[in-house]
Amino acid sequence: MFNKLADFLRAQYPNFGFREVITPTIYKKSLWQTSGHWDNYADDMFEVRGRGATGQTENAREGQDEEFGLKPMNCPGHCLLFKSEKRSYRDLPIRYADFSALHRNEVSGALSGLTRVRRFHQDDGHIFCRPSQILEEIKLTLDFVGMVYKTFGLGPYKLVLSTRPADHYIGTPEEWGRAEDQLKAALDASGRDWSINEGDGAFYGPKIDIILKDSDGKEHQTATIQLDFQLPQRFELEYTAPAPELERRGEVTPDTDPALLFESGPVTPVIIHRAILGSLERFLSLLIEHYDGKYPFWLSPRQAIVLSVSQEPAELKYVDEVTKQLSKQWYGDRPAPLDHIYHNVDQDTSARSLGKKIREAKSKGYNFIAVVGPNDVAKGTLTLEMWNHRVKDHGSSEGYVEGEAPGSSRDLYGLLTK
Amino acid sequence: MFNKLADFLRAQYPNFGFREVITPTIYKKSLWQTSGHWDNYADDMFEVRGRGATGQTENAREGQDEEFGLKPMNCPGHCLLFKSEKRSYRDLPIRYADFSALHRNEVSGALSGLTRVRRFHQDDGHIFCRPSQILEEIKLTLDFVGMVYKTFGLGPYKLVLSTRPADHYIGTPEEWGRAEDQLKAALDASGRDWSINEGDGAFYGPKIDIILKDSDGKEHQTATIQLDFQLPQRFELEYTAPAPELERRGEVTPDTDPALLFESGPVTPVIIHRAILGSLERFLSLLIEHYDGKYPFWLSPRQAIVLSVSQEPAELKYVDEVTKQLSKQWYGDRPAPLDHIYHNVDQDTSARSLGKKIREAKSKGYNFIAVVGPNDVAKGTLTLEMWNHRVKDHGSSEGYVEGEAPGSSRDLYGLLTK
Ligand SMILES: [Zn+2]
Ligand SMILES: [Zn+2]
Repeated sequence: MFNKLADFLRAQYPNFGFREVITPTIYKKSLWQTSGHWDNYADDMFEVRGRGATGQTENAREGQDEEFGLKPMNCPGHCLLFKSEKRSYRDLPIRYADFSALHRNEVSGALSGLTRVRRFHQDDGHIFCRPSQILEEIKLTLDFVGMVYKTFGLGPYKLVLSTRPADHYIGTPEEWGRAEDQLKAALDASGRDWSINEGDGAFYGPKIDIILKDSDGKEHQTATIQLDFQLPQRFELEYTAPAPELERRGEVTPDTDPALLFESGPVTPVIIHRAILGSLERFLSLLIEHYDGKYPFWLSPRQAIVLSVSQEPAELKYVDEVTKQLSKQWYGDRPAPLDHIYHNVDQDTSARSLGKKIREAKSKGYNFIAVVGPNDVAKGTLTLEMWNHRVKDHGSSEGYVEGEAPGSSRDLYGLLTK
Repeated sequence: MFNKLADFLRAQYPNFGFREVITPTIYKKSLWQTSGHWDNYADDMFEVRGRGATGQTENAREGQDEEFGLKPMNCPGHCLLFKSEKRSYRDLPIRYADFSALHRNEVSGALSGLTRVRRFHQDDGHIFCRPSQILEEIKLTLDFVGMVYKTFGLGPYKLVLSTRPADHYIGTPEEWGRAEDQLKAALDASGRDWSINEGDGAFYGPKIDIILKDSDGKEHQTATIQLDFQLPQRFELEYTAPAPELERRGEVTPDTDPALLFESGPVTPVIIHRAILGSLERFLSLLIEHYDGKYPFWLSPRQAIVLSVSQEPAELKYVDEVTKQLSKQWYGDRPAPLDHIYHNVDQDTSARSLGKKIREAKSKGYNFIAVVGPNDVAKGTLTLEMWNHRVKDHGSSEGYVEGEAPGSSRDLYGLLTK
């Protein structure tokens, strides 16, 4: 299911302009000093040492004998990627997505010395954009959030905007004002209710939190959209744009004006950190509760089971054949194509009564339950007991098959009813 | 391309009985002591330390204040997975595949203090099997190797069996003899030439190396199949089997004999370490050389390009439309399905001459080159200049489209010629 979640997002990324990148797990200490993590976050970070990377050479130059840090987040790595090429305003926005494992060293429990390694995966993404592009990017991100939560049938959720703190913030009140106005416009355009947490933003930028209500009314903070004015400065990121003064203020000039093009100059991009699901592990536990064992077909770890009526050898052989066929095992010399999707199909050929086997399969939450009896072997048929959690006599199956979102049970349904 | 390689193997894994697992990046020191890595491999490993994991508490019990090690290989993690449940002979073989990042601290260059972090990804897999299953598993693995190398058009390759060293080995000569006989039988069954490196095996088991010859005649060791009698002992792995004495010798007893079943007992499984591609990074560099810029469609980072003849606004707009359509951008409210495959489609609408643009696109190795002229806009057509590296007038396109292996250019070809 973990892989399915990541695959689901991967299938959407190109439409939302994201490129998936694979970035290192450990970086030299100096990177974490640039990002500010080494100073502010040291206790929660793991240091990595080894031969030639001890951090103990006196007067070592940067890059020499440095220890490493295990990454607690992807942003610094993505900043390096952005910086690896010269960027023009035409290249922006640039959007990176990353499913890397992240490590945080969090103390849990009162017992001193007890360390909880938190290793988790985030559907992490960073958008590097022009100040004038904040509105469009936030809109697009809110659309993405909406589409994903609708797919899982999650919600309702609240949108909360946190604005500039009263003191201790970077940049000017005007910069904040312009950014917050764009966030507000995007929130308005989303057509959803949103509220404001005045002064509750981080010192480096305003943010939007998505707060999900579960069926018990409990609230979970899942997705976040965080603007960042600081990191691009720390990493000295820049892109070239005409009329840099105007560009910095988020004013776009027609690039057909040769005079303005002539005075091109460097501008610092804005970074938007965003996660749609948040921690995949935590989101998965939300889904487990949400679906209560009745997963949609595409996400289900138990997509189908084939039950035998008896233990006749011919019947068992037929059950095997049906199982292979339904699981879409791939035959032949040629490799299975990249878009081949297998089904998780089990079988129960135990000597227990059919009634017992059906009850157990139902309680285990199989999407499809198929029964094979002695008559089926000769005729090459089977009986469908349940499909997508609906019992046979509850009506036609069409609706439930239709209801499927990103994968499809149509395939399997087709195999089962042909 | 990195992701495509992994996806390609993922599409084959279920057919070969592998389950992809996601395992941690860091493990406590005591695990690496069990595996023997901490003693024999310490210099090449990175230590990980942090709050509560300093390794500096005196008389600490195991698990208390231990430092961690960054994994250089997946085997110990997979051993823990195997050990996490009670196993019966009926459950075997159990096959885990893992694409995790691995870290090795290798000294490169003469300058002391210079560390080369080697972070790489392997298409790593471990098979836990009964002594009697070695033959079948090796056969299956050699089939897998053959299918993969054929797909990439790589080869010829040599198979080399390394056998028991003269001294310093674990187990008995009889155990080695039985295992080597199974390896030889599997090599014979492969129908390929193979040779033997007498006495060249590791102390913990015999192995088969796959040595690939590139177009320059240079040899590359890529895939390996390594038997391991030691690791299962170090981790005290076991499964329950009837007649354990016979089972250990690789003799299978009919499990219908109630007397034998009655005397079930624990047996140590054999581990087969195997990698088909080896390091994905290194394999990728082999492929880059092998294809010399002319990738098969499914693997190609440049699947298609759309060229404009002029810079007429209507033409540019049409180029945009065609590009979106060919790249299979997903429309609509519903999310893209999991098996949706996008195409990498670029465009060149620069003011240069069409001839220049075509030449550049050819030299860049695009699989498909499509040209849009003023007449095409009205008629909704385009001209195909090249498909799968074949120029228009070299004959019918059918053959080249057919030649595609795991992905398919049929889709795109269909869009381009309809
Ligand atoms: Zn971030
Ligand atoms: Zn291994």
